[in-house]
Amino acid sequence: MSVYLHDIPLSQAQTRLREALRDADLWRVLEVEEIPLDERALGRVTAEPIWAEISSPHYHASAMDGFAVRAVDTNGAQPSAPVTLYIGPEAQYVDTGDPLPEWANAVIPIENVESLDENDQITTNIRAPKVIRIRASVAPWAHVRPLGEDIVATQLVLSAGHTLRPADLGAIAAAGHQSIWVARRPKVAILPTGTELVPIGSKLRSGDILEYNSLVLAAQVRQMGGEPTRYPITRDDFDLICERVAEAAQTHDLVLLNAGSSAGAEDFSSRVVEKLGMLLVHGVAVRPGHPVILGTIDREARVEGGQSSVVPIIGVPGYPVSAALTIDIFVEPVLARWQGRPPLELPTETAILTRKLVSPAGDDDFVRVVVGRVGEKLLAAPLSRGAGVITSLVQADGLALVPSGVQGMEAGENIQVRLYRSKPEIEKTILAIGSHDLTLDLIAQFLAEHDRRLASANVGSQGGLVALRRGEAHLAGSHLLDPQDGTYNVSYIRQYMPGIPVKVVALVGRDQGLIVKKGNPKGIKSLRDLTQPQVQFVNRQRGAGTRVLLDYHLNLMAISPDSVAGYYQEEYTHLGVAAAIASGRADCGLGVAAAAQALDLDFIPLFQERYDLVIPRQFAETNLMAPLFDLLADPRFRSAVSHLKGYDVSVMGTLIMED
Amino acid sequence: MSVYLHDIPLSQAQTRLREALRDADLWRVLEVEEIPLDERALGRVTAEPIWAEISSPHYHASAMDGFAVRAVDTNGAQPSAPVTLYIGPEAQYVDTGDPLPEWANAVIPIENVESLDENDQITTNIRAPKVIRIRASVAPWAHVRPLGEDIVATQLVLSAGHTLRPADLGAIAAAGHQSIWVARRPKVAILPTGTELVPIGSKLRSGDILEYNSLVLAAQVRQMGGEPTRYPITRDDFDLICERVAEAAQTHDLVLLNAGSSAGAEDFSSRVVEKLGMLLVHGVAVRPGHPVILGTIDREARVEGGQSSVVPIIGVPGYPVSAALTIDIFVEPVLARWQGRPPLELPTETAILTRKLVSPAGDDDFVRVVVGRVGEKLLAAPLSRGAGVITSLVQADGLALVPSGVQGMEAGENIQVRLYRSKPEIEKTILAIGSHDLTLDLIAQFLAEHDRRLASANVGSQGGLVALRRGEAHLAGSHLLDPQDGTYNVSYIRQYMPGIPVKVVALVGRDQGLIVKKGNPKGIKSLRDLTQPQVQFVNRQRGAGTRVLLDYHLNLMAISPDSVAGYYQEEYTHLGVAAAIASGRADCGLGVAAAAQALDLDFIPLFQERYDLVIPRQFAETNLMAPLFDLLADPRFRSAVSHLKGYDVSVMGTLIMED
Repeated sequence: MSVYLHDIPLSQAQTRLREALRDADLWRVLEVEEIPLDERALGRVTAEPIWAEISSPHYHASAMDGFAVRAVDTNGAQPSAPVTLYIGPEAQYVDTGDPLPEWANAVIPIENVESLDENDQITTNIRAPKVIRIRASVAPWAHVRPLGEDIVATQLVLSAGHTLRPADLGAIAAAGHQSIWVARRPKVAILPTGTELVPIGSKLRSGDILEYNSLVLAAQVRQMGGEPTRYPITRDDFDLICERVAEAAQTHDLVLLNAGSSAGAEDFSSRVVEKLGMLLVHGVAVRPGHPVILGTIDREARVEGGQSSVVPIIGVPGYPVSAALTIDIFVEPVLARWQGRPPLELPTETAILTRKLVSPAGDDDFVRVVVGRVGEKLLAAPLSRGAGVITSLVQADGLALVPSGVQGMEAGENIQVRLYRSKPEIEKTILAIGSHDLTLDLIAQFLAEHDRRLASANVGSQGGLVALRRGEAHLAGSHLLDPQDGTYNVSYIRQYMPGIPVKVVALVGRDQGLIVKKGNPKGIKSLRDLTQPQVQFVNRQRGAGTRVLLDYHLNLMAISPDSVAGYYQEEYTHLGVAAAIASGRADCGLGVAAAAQALDLDFIPLFQERYDLVIPRQFAETNLMAPLFDLLADPRFRSAVSHLKGYDVSVMGTLIMED
Repeated sequence: MSVYLHDIPLSQAQTRLREALRDADLWRVLEVEEIPLDERALGRVTAEPIWAEISSPHYHASAMDGFAVRAVDTNGAQPSAPVTLYIGPEAQYVDTGDPLPEWANAVIPIENVESLDENDQITTNIRAPKVIRIRASVAPWAHVRPLGEDIVATQLVLSAGHTLRPADLGAIAAAGHQSIWVARRPKVAILPTGTELVPIGSKLRSGDILEYNSLVLAAQVRQMGGEPTRYPITRDDFDLICERVAEAAQTHDLVLLNAGSSAGAEDFSSRVVEKLGMLLVHGVAVRPGHPVILGTIDREARVEGGQSSVVPIIGVPGYPVSAALTIDIFVEPVLARWQGRPPLELPTETAILTRKLVSPAGDDDFVRVVVGRVGEKLLAAPLSRGAGVITSLVQADGLALVPSGVQGMEAGENIQVRLYRSKPEIEKTILAIGSHDLTLDLIAQFLAEHDRRLASANVGSQGGLVALRRGEAHLAGSHLLDPQDGTYNVSYIRQYMPGIPVKVVALVGRDQGLIVKKGNPKGIKSLRDLTQPQVQFVNRQRGAGTRVLLDYHLNLMAISPDSVAGYYQEEYTHLGVAAAIASGRADCGLGVAAAAQALDLDFIPLFQERYDLVIPRQFAETNLMAPLFDLLADPRFRSAVSHLKGYDVSVMGTLIMED
């Protein structure tokens, strides 16, 4: 068994799969079915062109409530010389949609008519007079919807391969149909395998992995028009997996075998495919997701005709981001073809990359990015690239591709981004960058109620100010203490953002202190204890306000960083520090009380500090940001923040500087 | 009863509805419900923020297949100075996802390890050696996914008001949830009313109207996240309508009463609302769709608590385009609010208007447009503005708004278009303009199979050449006879498109002749018969190639147009002419055989002519147009055209001119 996969280029892998399907006569619409024309047809794909059986309207219809007349009879009518027409031979009341009498070829709207009784007196019985008087002539076919105005029998109403929308259903009905031939939904089996997997909702032990890939895959398949079947988890047992796959292949059009596609001890997928059919590809030069398997399974001969003799199988990598991208890259085009619709194509925009990207030269590297408009610039900020980080897919606004052959890209370069969100949504994104604070999550939640989306990246306070200077964000959260005078942020803003007018408002006062394990087993009381040999510290990254605070106090106390074990072990958020302590990776770290509370840790308050929002003036007065300022004055928000431990909301909204 | 509606401005109408809902405490999420976390949750809207219950990973997990080690034990390892680690105390094999042993803090990937047996010999048992040898040190936490890498317990995973996508479901599962609180789907009753209405599939008599609005409305409601109920057709009976509406209001959140919203004799809707509740608005200054009714129905007190005492009702106009737009304008924002999601916003692009639009100054006028990119220009070509023309919604790529206060717009002006289609789809649109031919429908169908969309506008041959000159289309169909030399198109192209290099290819030869009623009751034989007093002719519009052909032959035969009854009655397509004859509006018209065949009419062939495709050279060699040229050489296409009566495919694809 080989340890290394042989990665082939993405386009080559896609071609191999397509060719195998073509050889098996499976590169086509799978089957068609007739369904009733009702609202459940929405999203189905037409299997045939739809030609009109009848015309619409199928008769000359009045387009107004009024009187049907012969146009020629109205000739000469003028304000000063009215023409009188007798109901019956010369005029007939019609409602909108009524057929014109055979002899009529125009309609006079009721509001242009004087209705008269037998004595030529105005009558209130306006729709059933004896006579009408008109003071203007009408042209032939005025206010008439002629036969075929909308649809002429035999015309093309919709092409085959069209995904049905609401108005389409109406047009098909208007064209005289009451059922419709559509492509059958492809049936897709999803088989999660792995002894370490446990179902959603299980009580977790160390080493257990929640099996939610099948959920994501099923939802993707459904969104692409397929019919997913989620199988129960199969443990890592070669024979059992073979049995399940063979069974699924009998009743499905496509089998997705999740995980086991790599080359580890319990990665059976390639052997399963080799045993039951043919392995086409094992390994694709794409990141994330390279341990993909493509193959076909031989199907047992069946009595019912028309079934293909092989069923494609895809070994989907186990990491959730890899799994989801594998579906987008390999499954979507197949499901599109089987339904006869064009493959999904996301709108693409050119954006400016905010950070350098390093990428292996041989791979097509897909990077999840947050996209936002800051001033005139459309920015793409890369998210975590870990294949296990499903939240990166949740937060992503789009997918940027660093193509194979390119080893990386520099910050400031243009990059093509396939957008998951519409541009109006992106225009409502507030990009926040800088120091992390738990209240940012609350801000995100409150802003969502006011049609704004907060996308925040944590790069520390200084990093946030630098990003603002570069025009890469709308606001930065900052809590930078000036060791000279004990003020916050102002001197740093002058230093890092010279010449850029800003508005700075206080968000909260908050406690900073040492986060320690529950019960404080190492008896830590102050920064002094960090130098004790048995105490393992975890630090924040350089540029973080908390790091500045730590360095300030270590300096005051004349403690050398080198005497603190773990000083160079860095985390990027308060919760990251807390998680490191909760997991035993460290004994303590400097952070906010809320983070300790969140993970049920103890907290030793040491200092109070102010956390501000820094907003360049050019954004401060925009419509985009207005809800943020409303929020700072919203008692509901203030109350929600004050319920977090260690927060002081008395300063909230105070103007710190404005220039 | 008033005949005239009082139209109020659109924004005012929307405000009145919103305020009425607010007063009734209905401007909020209606109700929440807990649903299991499975793929059916797709598209539902979160009712609460989702906070993480657990971290993911919930332990330090190996990110690779390899050996867990203490990083410090690997210090000093170099290619020339390997370090040996004993399995058990110093190294332990881990698969990807396995928890690290308590004592370990890094993983060495298996491919970087030499596995040795007890004799320090390389063993094939690579995962269960006695000893491993490494030739490079590893950093602490290398190849480890630390606890909380993806999600840290207590963090915000998703905001309330978020519409769930596949990856979201995975993140919610990863955060420790197995069910989810979402907004209940709003229940919407759709009541079609009208004595003239008949269900889809009915055999039609004159005056019958197919009831398909409820189908379109139900599909729209479903697409917006609501649960539609389609009621059977109610005839125009005030008491019966009242009864049905009152019943629907008991069990639904919103009632849509379709048609009867105008002010005609049988337009009961406003009286129904007045009787059962409160009429808020009758008539909105919006086109199409102005006879909208907004109101509330009083609900009977019910035992179950929590039900609102009123139910909003919307009187939806009867014309299908008006009906669909009413749902977009008034219903979508309400359904959005009830589900707690932002209202749908279509992406907007600026396009260049291809024709003048006249619009009443007081109305917000929504115009359906075809959108395509021709060279550098994004063009918006208005479609039929008839409120009864549902095919205009099917063909539309977007909706352009001529706002109230603007009386119209000139061709060439910039107009904002809300796009129904994504930009990639629009980039694949071939805009054809010019003369109509039935083969264009076949071309559209064949191009759809090759990922192109043909949008065609019929403006006649000359109009098409003028549009090409203006850069408003990619190709024009033309059959303009030069009376001087009997050639087609070339001299006209020189005249109308001077200086623009073009490629002209023949599409078909086709018969032109007189379309007459079945059995030719008036015994028409030649153009000479058009001057007979009992013969009513229907003509094509000026600039149409068929009109040129007629004028040419009338002139040859010295027949004055004024001697032809109906010479000035114009239709814009061959099928339009045929429909006029089929319906009795005229006795004969000049056109192609296929149009006669389509409507089961008789045809008297008189002339054969050539129909060409004219393509400016700048487009002829683009990727966009390539499938069109492939088509002309496709035997399937040739065969499909040759099955139409009166078509000669021998010329198909012949190059007529190229410069």
